[in-house]
Amino acid sequence: MKSTLKFEPISEDNFEIFFQLILELAKYEKLKGPDAEAKARLKEDGLSANPKYTAFIGLYTDIPIGYIIYYTTYSSFLALPSLFIEDLFILAKYRRKGFGHQFFKFMIDLAASNEYGRIEWIVLDWNQPAINFYEKLGASRQGWYFYRLNREAFSNVIK
Amino acid sequence: MKSTLKFEPISEDNFEIFFQLILELAKYEKLKGPDAEAKARLKEDGLSANPKYTAFIGLYTDIPIGYIIYYTTYSSFLALPSLFIEDLFILAKYRRKGFGHQFFKFMIDLAASNEYGRIEWIVLDWNQPAINFYEKLGASRQGWYFYRLNREAFSNVIK
Repeated sequence: MKSTLKFEPISEDNFEIFFQLILELAKYEKLKGPDAEAKARLKEDGLSANPKYTAFIGLYTDIPIGYIIYYTTYSSFLALPSLFIEDLFILAKYRRKGFGHQFFKFMIDLAASNEYGRIEWIVLDWNQPAINFYEKLGASRQGWYFYRLNREAFSNVIK
Repeated sequence: MKSTLKFEPISEDNFEIFFQLILELAKYEKLKGPDAEAKARLKEDGLSANPKYTAFIGLYTDIPIGYIIYYTTYSSFLALPSLFIEDLFILAKYRRKGFGHQFFKFMIDLAASNEYGRIEWIVLDWNQPAINFYEKLGASRQGWYFYRLNREAFSNVIK
């Protein structure tokens, strides 16, 4: 007996709920979440005519239990678009109920019907519950390191 | 005394050179590169009116010495676009001459003037020369694992 999730795209109506879920993820990941200015940009970037990301809230009996943010990247070796999951978050009390699996089925339906070659994402190396879930799903950890150059570091490279 | 690179966008004219460089990268990374069908898609996807990726060839005294492929992703926590480098490759005989640094300056100029919050990329965990270069550049390795679900694995999740 599975509790079925409903996936609702973000909108003017549910944006505040969406934003609160992002703050919950930031708290869980012990990372700095969006501030007030970032919130305004996030709204503009997600709800404009040419959105910079796509996001859905997962509703279980009308209760928002989590969200997903994704966008399209590209593999030069496959020469196919990839679906990249930026955020996937489920509130603590709704975990281990199959909702994560339903989020992934939702992504796979989308990827398979739009000729995406892969679905990719990153996970914090200490987030063992998430890692266990991804491994069980049949996803494979790749032998890549993830690097970043922050805006503050740009000038060090140029000088 | 620095040898200055010229960056040329991919076009009908240089596509074959670009494609040969991609095959060289695949060989270096010991990964499967694009086949003939992928080559056709790569051309369509890169040269269409709405390209799925952006690519430049680096020319040193008119000799193509390497290439870069990038696209725009998005950070929900910063609420800013990120510039993601899919491929950066320099032919073996042109390494250790400062060309990699020039490719990064090119990316940083682009990112800084277009309000990108970060530049990000992944590197194979055994590619120590590249890792050394990125560390020297001031980039920081993030504590994330990179996961992938191949198209072949989609059906295992859905069933």
